Amino acid sequence: MSAVPGGVERSLGLVETRRVALWDERDPLVLESGEQLEFVEVAYETYGELDADASNCVYVCHALTGDAHAAGHHGDPARRGWWDNLIGPGKPLDTDRLYVVCANLLGGCQGTTGPSSIDPRTGKPYGLRFPLCTVRDLVTVHRRLLAHLGVERPLAAIGGSVGGMQVLQWAIDHPDELGSGLVICASARLTAQNIAFSAVARAAIMEDENFHGGDYYEHGVRPDSGLSLARRIAHITYLSEESMRAKFGRRLQHDGEPLRGFGIDFAVESYLEYQGESFVNRFDANSYLYLTRVMDYFDPLGDVAPVIERLHGSRTRFLVLSFDTDWRFPTEHSREIVRILTAARIPVTFREIESPHGHDSFLLPVPEYHRTVAAFVERQRLEAVGG
Amino acid sequence: MSAVPGGVERSLGLVETRRVALWDERDPLVLESGEQLEFVEVAYETYGELDADASNCVYVCHALTGDAHAAGHHGDPARRGWWDNLIGPGKPLDTDRLYVVCANLLGGCQGTTGPSSIDPRTGKPYGLRFPLCTVRDLVTVHRRLLAHLGVERPLAAIGGSVGGMQVLQWAIDHPDELGSGLVICASARLTAQNIAFSAVARAAIMEDENFHGGDYYEHGVRPDSGLSLARRIAHITYLSEESMRAKFGRRLQHDGEPLRGFGIDFAVESYLEYQGESFVNRFDANSYLYLTRVMDYFDPLGDVAPVIERLHGSRTRFLVLSFDTDWRFPTEHSREIVRILTAARIPVTFREIESPHGHDSFLLPVPEYHRTVAAFVERQRLEAVGG
Repeated sequence: MSAVPGGVERSLGLVETRRVALWDERDPLVLESGEQLEFVEVAYETYGELDADASNCVYVCHALTGDAHAAGHHGDPARRGWWDNLIGPGKPLDTDRLYVVCANLLGGCQGTTGPSSIDPRTGKPYGLRFPLCTVRDLVTVHRRLLAHLGVERPLAAIGGSVGGMQVLQWAIDHPDELGSGLVICASARLTAQNIAFSAVARAAIMEDENFHGGDYYEHGVRPDSGLSLARRIAHITYLSEESMRAKFGRRLQHDGEPLRGFGIDFAVESYLEYQGESFVNRFDANSYLYLTRVMDYFDPLGDVAPVIERLHGSRTRFLVLSFDTDWRFPTEHSREIVRILTAARIPVTFREIESPHGHDSFLLPVPEYHRTVAAFVERQRLEAVGG
Repeated sequence: MSAVPGGVERSLGLVETRRVALWDERDPLVLESGEQLEFVEVAYETYGELDADASNCVYVCHALTGDAHAAGHHGDPARRGWWDNLIGPGKPLDTDRLYVVCANLLGGCQGTTGPSSIDPRTGKPYGLRFPLCTVRDLVTVHRRLLAHLGVERPLAAIGGSVGGMQVLQWAIDHPDELGSGLVICASARLTAQNIAFSAVARAAIMEDENFHGGDYYEHGVRPDSGLSLARRIAHITYLSEESMRAKFGRRLQHDGEPLRGFGIDFAVESYLEYQGESFVNRFDANSYLYLTRVMDYFDPLGDVAPVIERLHGSRTRFLVLSFDTDWRFPTEHSREIVRILTAARIPVTFREIESPHGHDSFLLPVPEYHRTVAAFVERQRLEAVGG
């Protein structure tokens, strides 16, 4: 396994997103809440080849605004999947050896059933009539997709941020199923500050004049201003103070004297505006509401004794990673996860990675981070082959 | 001087806000930009008595959303000025001995001329036609008010946050005028992250459908949703992560099971909503735009050599305070101010105060903070009396 540095980087080529209906009216998806979805379609991608005994599968759980397109490209080699630096031949998730699967989340808006999908009962988009699902429900969909693909026991599940929450929930609920879990800059429980930021972002969407109670689809408008605001607010929390300082400082967007007005003047303002504008063209406002709210309610270790009991003796190996400048989910969140897993006598490797990039580090090719992931996954793979 | 702890607290009684026109068409206010304001009225309050040689005046510079009503009450003793815990008989700014003055800022909305005032040229509210002023302009107004009150050389100027910025600018521009400056949790230069938060807050206001380019007054509406969002976003930055954790944690607003929906469910959500709602009833959205933008552009130490030269030999004494959990303007901002003042060989006392309350600490009766302010001010007073 050669994890990039010094080597020639090879990347995946053309890939495609497939769709599969995993539940239908004869066999509806029953959610943790008891509510049912009569039709659930899932968009997913796979990279690499599944080996004969289906033992080399790594399942990628995406974060809030991700999608199934984690690696490779869809026709333009310059525009690549969101984790292309991690997934590919010779990369930390080495597709010469591994079979990597990534699917858009339930509640999402990139091909998997979500609030913008047509509700078969009404023939109209669900909007806020879509059921509020849980991280457990997201995992239910992942597992059904893997069954469809012929994988019973993935070698690993990996995810950053809410992706890591899915990995954690998966490992807790099905301790014998996951070979290993890579939980990256995640949290077992949002703090009041975390919830506050998400609440304000949701308020920006729901108070947008074009929101129409979530039924903006039928009004031919979108709450773009609110969704863009939500993205800009959240984006500040994804970057570290020091990375913003290094990237923008107090630099002006234009040459010469400051404009001294209320338009874009500082470079950081221009950057945020760009982030907001490009986001609204790829994301559905209702999905943003649902997936952030899923995170607020996530608290799988809240009642810890039964969790420890269930995990006791689990063979799932864990790699828990945090980034030292992440203030969205600081290292303390990861340490709490490690404490519980350790209490359940589960083997855990924990590392706080130095990176100036804050929460966003999990999307970036931070060398120590990539080396650590590569070594951990390769060890799991070798043990699985050997065992 | 007895600064509260243990003692019986005495507070100011009924006080009143007065107004004075400090500039008019025969003598317009010329701003740093060269723009002019033909009529400037200032709302202010005073507490205590000015002594015979006008040597006991402490000028209070308020922060972003403050006003002239710093202490005492306007009829309801339960509703007191925003710094009533600091100002009053026997309090750190002891009105038995000091003459304390506080005025609403230029650009504000609580009695001093600002964007919601009538533009004498048009007979309509200024809106965004109000000139963008600077911290230097704010200080110009403070000085004119003091001249009107018969004070040539205040014993001290004190302020937290943007209030501290005014103190700093005052001391730089008029090094022989201020006896002392108390610069509390302030900054000499906003970071990219600081600007980013303010930019998003302003965008929330300016993208509100009721903003009407700042001319909402004449449409009979207000951008309340945007202003409330701005306040909620900013408010998160005023509290420390740990104070939010202690105050709210993941506590639900209602008894029983979580509602699991998009309404108010967590206590922190309810708190933020309350903060937003109560703010829009006391503050003008355009003033919020102006006063936050004033902070973005503030950078008095950017070109440091001439500042050090001007300050050299100044007799102004400084107390610079920060709070250890303040992440709006962390201690590093205060240290930078101290570095420059020290380089100019100005006497500076610097202290980082332990307080769990984040940036908002400057408004709260944190004992060590109050003791430090009281001791510093009393020393200035005794030296002034003695000298």
